[in-house]
Amino acid sequence: MSKEVLAQNLVKWRRDFHQYPETGFLEMRTASIVASILDDLGFELQMGKKVMSADHCMGKPNETETKKHLAWAKENGANADYLDYFSEGYTGIVAILDTHKSGPTIAYRVDMDALPIYESTSENHAPLKKGFRSINNNMHACGHDAHTSIGLGLASLLAAKKDELRGKFKLIFQPAEEGTRGAKSMVEAGVVSDVDYLIASHIGIGVPHNHVVASNNGFLSTSKLDVSFKGVASHAGGNPEEGKNALLAAANAAINLTAISRHSNGKTRINVGEMHAGSGRNIIPDNAALKVETRGETSEINEYVKKQAESIVAGAAAMYQLEYDIELVGEGKSCTCSTEVAAVLQECAQDAGLTGVLESNESAGSEDATFFIDAVQKRGGYGTYCIFGTELAAGHHNERFDINEDTLLQAAEILFDSAAKLSTIEK
Amino acid sequence: MSKEVLAQNLVKWRRDFHQYPETGFLEMRTASIVASILDDLGFELQMGKKVMSADHCMGKPNETETKKHLAWAKENGANADYLDYFSEGYTGIVAILDTHKSGPTIAYRVDMDALPIYESTSENHAPLKKGFRSINNNMHACGHDAHTSIGLGLASLLAAKKDELRGKFKLIFQPAEEGTRGAKSMVEAGVVSDVDYLIASHIGIGVPHNHVVASNNGFLSTSKLDVSFKGVASHAGGNPEEGKNALLAAANAAINLTAISRHSNGKTRINVGEMHAGSGRNIIPDNAALKVETRGETSEINEYVKKQAESIVAGAAAMYQLEYDIELVGEGKSCTCSTEVAAVLQECAQDAGLTGVLESNESAGSEDATFFIDAVQKRGGYGTYCIFGTELAAGHHNERFDINEDTLLQAAEILFDSAAKLSTIEK
Amino acid sequence: MSKEVLAQNLVKWRRDFHQYPETGFLEMRTASIVASILDDLGFELQMGKKVMSADHCMGKPNETETKKHLAWAKENGANADYLDYFSEGYTGIVAILDTHKSGPTIAYRVDMDALPIYESTSENHAPLKKGFRSINNNMHACGHDAHTSIGLGLASLLAAKKDELRGKFKLIFQPAEEGTRGAKSMVEAGVVSDVDYLIASHIGIGVPHNHVVASNNGFLSTSKLDVSFKGVASHAGGNPEEGKNALLAAANAAINLTAISRHSNGKTRINVGEMHAGSGRNIIPDNAALKVETRGETSEINEYVKKQAESIVAGAAAMYQLEYDIELVGEGKSCTCSTEVAAVLQECAQDAGLTGVLESNESAGSEDATFFIDAVQKRGGYGTYCIFGTELAAGHHNERFDINEDTLLQAAEILFDSAAKLSTIEK
Amino acid sequence: MSKEVLAQNLVKWRRDFHQYPETGFLEMRTASIVASILDDLGFELQMGKKVMSADHCMGKPNETETKKHLAWAKENGANADYLDYFSEGYTGIVAILDTHKSGPTIAYRVDMDALPIYESTSENHAPLKKGFRSINNNMHACGHDAHTSIGLGLASLLAAKKDELRGKFKLIFQPAEEGTRGAKSMVEAGVVSDVDYLIASHIGIGVPHNHVVASNNGFLSTSKLDVSFKGVASHAGGNPEEGKNALLAAANAAINLTAISRHSNGKTRINVGEMHAGSGRNIIPDNAALKVETRGETSEINEYVKKQAESIVAGAAAMYQLEYDIELVGEGKSCTCSTEVAAVLQECAQDAGLTGVLESNESAGSEDATFFIDAVQKRGGYGTYCIFGTELAAGHHNERFDINEDTLLQAAEILFDSAAKLSTIEK
Repeated sequence: MSKEVLAQNLVKWRRDFHQYPETGFLEMRTASIVASILDDLGFELQMGKKVMSADHCMGKPNETETKKHLAWAKENGANADYLDYFSEGYTGIVAILDTHKSGPTIAYRVDMDALPIYESTSENHAPLKKGFRSINNNMHACGHDAHTSIGLGLASLLAAKKDELRGKFKLIFQPAEEGTRGAKSMVEAGVVSDVDYLIASHIGIGVPHNHVVASNNGFLSTSKLDVSFKGVASHAGGNPEEGKNALLAAANAAINLTAISRHSNGKTRINVGEMHAGSGRNIIPDNAALKVETRGETSEINEYVKKQAESIVAGAAAMYQLEYDIELVGEGKSCTCSTEVAAVLQECAQDAGLTGVLESNESAGSEDATFFIDAVQKRGGYGTYCIFGTELAAGHHNERFDINEDTLLQAAEILFDSAAKLSTIEK
Repeated sequence: MSKEVLAQNLVKWRRDFHQYPETGFLEMRTASIVASILDDLGFELQMGKKVMSADHCMGKPNETETKKHLAWAKENGANADYLDYFSEGYTGIVAILDTHKSGPTIAYRVDMDALPIYESTSENHAPLKKGFRSINNNMHACGHDAHTSIGLGLASLLAAKKDELRGKFKLIFQPAEEGTRGAKSMVEAGVVSDVDYLIASHIGIGVPHNHVVASNNGFLSTSKLDVSFKGVASHAGGNPEEGKNALLAAANAAINLTAISRHSNGKTRINVGEMHAGSGRNIIPDNAALKVETRGETSEINEYVKKQAESIVAGAAAMYQLEYDIELVGEGKSCTCSTEVAAVLQECAQDAGLTGVLESNESAGSEDATFFIDAVQKRGGYGTYCIFGTELAAGHHNERFDINEDTLLQAAEILFDSAAKLSTIEK
Repeated sequence: MSKEVLAQNLVKWRRDFHQYPETGFLEMRTASIVASILDDLGFELQMGKKVMSADHCMGKPNETETKKHLAWAKENGANADYLDYFSEGYTGIVAILDTHKSGPTIAYRVDMDALPIYESTSENHAPLKKGFRSINNNMHACGHDAHTSIGLGLASLLAAKKDELRGKFKLIFQPAEEGTRGAKSMVEAGVVSDVDYLIASHIGIGVPHNHVVASNNGFLSTSKLDVSFKGVASHAGGNPEEGKNALLAAANAAINLTAISRHSNGKTRINVGEMHAGSGRNIIPDNAALKVETRGETSEINEYVKKQAESIVAGAAAMYQLEYDIELVGEGKSCTCSTEVAAVLQECAQDAGLTGVLESNESAGSEDATFFIDAVQKRGGYGTYCIFGTELAAGHHNERFDINEDTLLQAAEILFDSAAKLSTIEK
Repeated sequence: MSKEVLAQNLVKWRRDFHQYPETGFLEMRTASIVASILDDLGFELQMGKKVMSADHCMGKPNETETKKHLAWAKENGANADYLDYFSEGYTGIVAILDTHKSGPTIAYRVDMDALPIYESTSENHAPLKKGFRSINNNMHACGHDAHTSIGLGLASLLAAKKDELRGKFKLIFQPAEEGTRGAKSMVEAGVVSDVDYLIASHIGIGVPHNHVVASNNGFLSTSKLDVSFKGVASHAGGNPEEGKNALLAAANAAINLTAISRHSNGKTRINVGEMHAGSGRNIIPDNAALKVETRGETSEINEYVKKQAESIVAGAAAMYQLEYDIELVGEGKSCTCSTEVAAVLQECAQDAGLTGVLESNESAGSEDATFFIDAVQKRGGYGTYCIFGTELAAGHHNERFDINEDTLLQAAEILFDSAAKLSTIEK
């Protein structure tokens, strides 16, 4: 396969995924196409529930929503040969290429999900001009379309050059990175329990084009919590004393959550991003829901914030004699990348003529790739999270987000080079 | 017209309105049919903006919603001959019958709007069994379908017996009683500026079948307020300090609104019935909205609560450096009914073999018919609010609400009798 | 004893008590003098713990404070012969006069305590001008000095005219009416378990001079609660996360207590009158205290408010992982006076040439005399709370409060007349 | 003067100051004795208002308190010859020794104030055992007694070895470091406007005995705010609607202050350390006071927190229609010490056989010595804040705080050595 063909494929794939964006645990069309391509390339495939622990999927859409989307996927080009694996929303794939030569097991993690953002209809927005703007109300506004495409490009190169390689390669296509919901279920299913080296990657994030950050350490540990309160409704004029007011409990919870103390050991964050309560102006509100997110510089600090949050919610419910529920719908760890693997990546970047930065500690975002890195490190392996710089038309999660597609080939090739280099390391 | 025919018409009308329920300021189909019937009966009609002050319509749907509903009305049996008068959502009607004999001007007020409640699909629910369950997501769960039908029955009787009567009769069909939004605009348009006697009526409200309460005095003065806060969004992990948090301001407002002091002069009520804020878990919320309602035993006491509420909202916005808005979307007065007209109604009820109660002071509800009564009393006339008891399948605003349709004829006849009696009083 | 001598005694007593004011459960000097006078008049005395249930004294000062005041009393004219009965702060007295003729048992309740108010030093303030201004930091700013004096005047008349009377008389001198703390302990000790008629009285309260209100029904049921929170202190800069913040819990409790819902059955009140928290600017506060008071138009409604309050305090403590305590330090009931005894009082007032009003329902204050009235009514007797109008120099609890001393004789004589009249009623 | 005599003096001075502790702006006895000793040593003295800007004294006690303490100082051994300079509470001293040889101006800053802490009465507490426990309710629980003593020891050495030195020396004895209240007024009075090198020092703070930290960079910028709210009182039962509730405003302020957002650029702290509100259980509270403290990793970040705090207080007051006041009663900056001077100190420590650490960035405390360092650096000079390790019997601000007195001589000698070294640097 020539470089030109690969470059064309990368753009074609990315634009296809961009046009048919699917949100977390609903990446059915995407996964079916990814599986089909990987199958054609000769990878051994593990799919769906085999690579995802159902008990550890967080914030997964309910059955109705899942079925509805399955119908959409069928009507919009999903590959019917693979759709059954993903039809219940377990949309993860692990693709294995075994050289059957001694060597390490090297994994690459790719995320596939889009965001519930309505893509720009501005005439200057490249996806519109070039005809691949989203056909639905979702949008690949974070670049996971590019990630999936790069993952397929890496697969193409690995397959083409299998004979030159040693060890075993695992490509992990993960659902639901947005909201840090999907990684944990794949880790719990054991997909990295044999992995020696793991590389997760992201494009953009403020890194300039032609730059590669080989290890990004700034991720905050995070928990995403859906909080709900259940009270008793009553007529606000006629018998207000019979109500048990869920709105007031939620309002108290929101304010006091935000007032959780700073921690002397490091950064914390707490946000109540949404609150919805009540069912009519003249009814004492019997329901309320909060979307909450905690963060900490370390997993311990995040755990501290989460524990305070639990007390506050329980106390607010008790104040108003309510029932309540706290559902964990997303989770990310903090982590420190392994210099052992980052240094290899940096070298590959420099070999490719790009600027390779070993380490960055910036950022107050969160990522669930940290679950993979942490699991690999815990078993004695090495993991890193790298960033491929690109030009952005607008920031991540913006309706006019777009990338420089040249980054696709750069990233696929550097990742392949890292695979080649790592595969020669004696276990 | 025989009593049997009238009874059949009353049921037919009520069921038709029940099946096609329309919410406040959107009673286009209803009004067009009411107008057509009244026109046929020989009433002089004043419609739409002529009987409603646009400046005093509170909580009126916006143009988009209004146009959308107009299309619905056209497709669902509105009478095209009258629809133009109501197409912008000014759906009030005043129907006049002048005997051209000296005598007082006597008005009856009828409300026509439904509620945004999804009607029961239980097999035991009479409207379902009998085939007139709502065809849309609204429901006549407060009996205004019956009120409109009774108003038409009264009109039929007045028209039939015009020669026996003196003075002038005005039938006022009012939109948007729910939320106490519509009456003020008709009063401000002057529709009762010549009225000597005014009777507003309601069915049910806990009064037993075959009972009539001739004057109901317990209405609390009320204000309905839509409160909104506008802040600045920012990423909750990356730069939380750049946000201006509208959710927290609204939460503080909600709690402190509820904490407004009692008043030593009489009852107060305050409710924050709904709160909606934020646009994503990881975004500092830049928007928040509250649905608030205040009540007072007198208009002065309600004014006290409203004034405190305004301070609290302004202060909460200032705490978080936000812009805010308070929109008055509904209003009702307190009032004391005129015994002069209530006594006549009581007599009519007793003549009809029913139990007539002169006065009740129960209730902590609110009504905007009080605007009509107050205006008539202020010009030296007399007004009352009466209740026709009926059997209820479930309470008002319940999805299984239903009435005993026998009440329709009783009410129409007693109201007509009161008209006949009042018309003979020397001015 | 001539009327002149009685009048002089009344003024002398009142001014003496006024000059040496003692707050609740510390009325040692007052009680010792009262006891001495009653003893001289021939009454049988029951004193201290004999007439007070220690378990039902609410908000009683601690031992240190009690001992300190005992020393004060000794130095300031307490009658040493009786002081032992009161030295632990059980300062109640029941004085019995038994005619040994058949007849009802008739009780009069008198309160003796002062307020922690610093009396005016204005030259125009009568107690200053006439030389009986308070010698300490307390003040009889509610008229209990007058009540005690009137009680002694009534005793003088009963003793003088014992031969004309029938039945048995009990004069109940109660401590700690302020804060509604003392009555319950005397009721629980059984002091009214044999009483057929009970009259409690107050001067002033807005009733004009020469007017008597024979029954005052407007008292709200009330509970006085001392709330405390106990957390963990830590340095606010160094390790804020180790603190458990009692100030924030108390602040939340205060706001949400005030937001307890109105009750559709009648008036409610809730006040957090004081809050004290924390021990230094740079310390996470580990302590907080609230002084709370609930009221309800009926005891049931007050119970509702109190129950909500308990949930709110418990929930606020749980939010911040604190220990908490709620101590009941005062209690008053609502009650309806017995017309049977009020009518007699009204007649006596009219016989004395004053304006006698049978009943008033005004007021949103609270009184623990209601415990006595309620207990008497429950055993089949009759009780009332009457008001003797007087001119006030300033309102109750004001530093310039003063009365028209002519009311002392009026009140003593009318109460005696009521005793005489009631004593002739056949049991 | 022999080393032995110096060592004895250091202990004697420290114990004397320990026994007569004085809080901020009241260090009259202390200052008069310090002045007397420095005068005897031949220093030129500038005292009181000459070295303190009255406009920049923060949280200074009022006149009554100041006069009361003056009387105490007179009775407790103040040196009458110098007391006049300090009698109004301007208790700062600048002592100058000019060698009249060319060379830099080198300043040392010493703080003198104690804390309002009741010193331990435990038998094991050294000051008790050795007879120098505090005679009043204050305590030197932070070591400023030792600092003052060390300052006098340094003065003794400078005076003794004046001939060996070059340049000019300024010893700055500062009042009111606790609460970061006093430094700013001395800086504003210009006392360091000619200073080339400045060293501030502290003992203890967790640094081990025989260790010296030559520059401590971790101080947070801080503001100390006294917040008060003024409302309207009214009777909570009788006319609650007439009150304007200061307690509720303060409670809201306290909670929302604590909820001020984290800042992405660095550490923040916020604490409401005390709240006091209300004047009686049954009175709507018309007064409330908060003791607040903000901190930030940089002065900019602290300014952000303070600005949010001001909005929150203003908004809370507006919610309840109150007047309010925010008084700045203390202030500290963040700063970065000058390595130029720290390196000299480190060398002196090592020369003395101690462990010298160049730099520490630990701590989340605050200090107003930062005002001096900042001012010196701004004019092109160099400043540092150093720590002399010692054994502590208990942590700072603990009632059992005590030090190892051997540190006194070590510190005085190392500071003198630094003076000698720095004085030889060419300007």
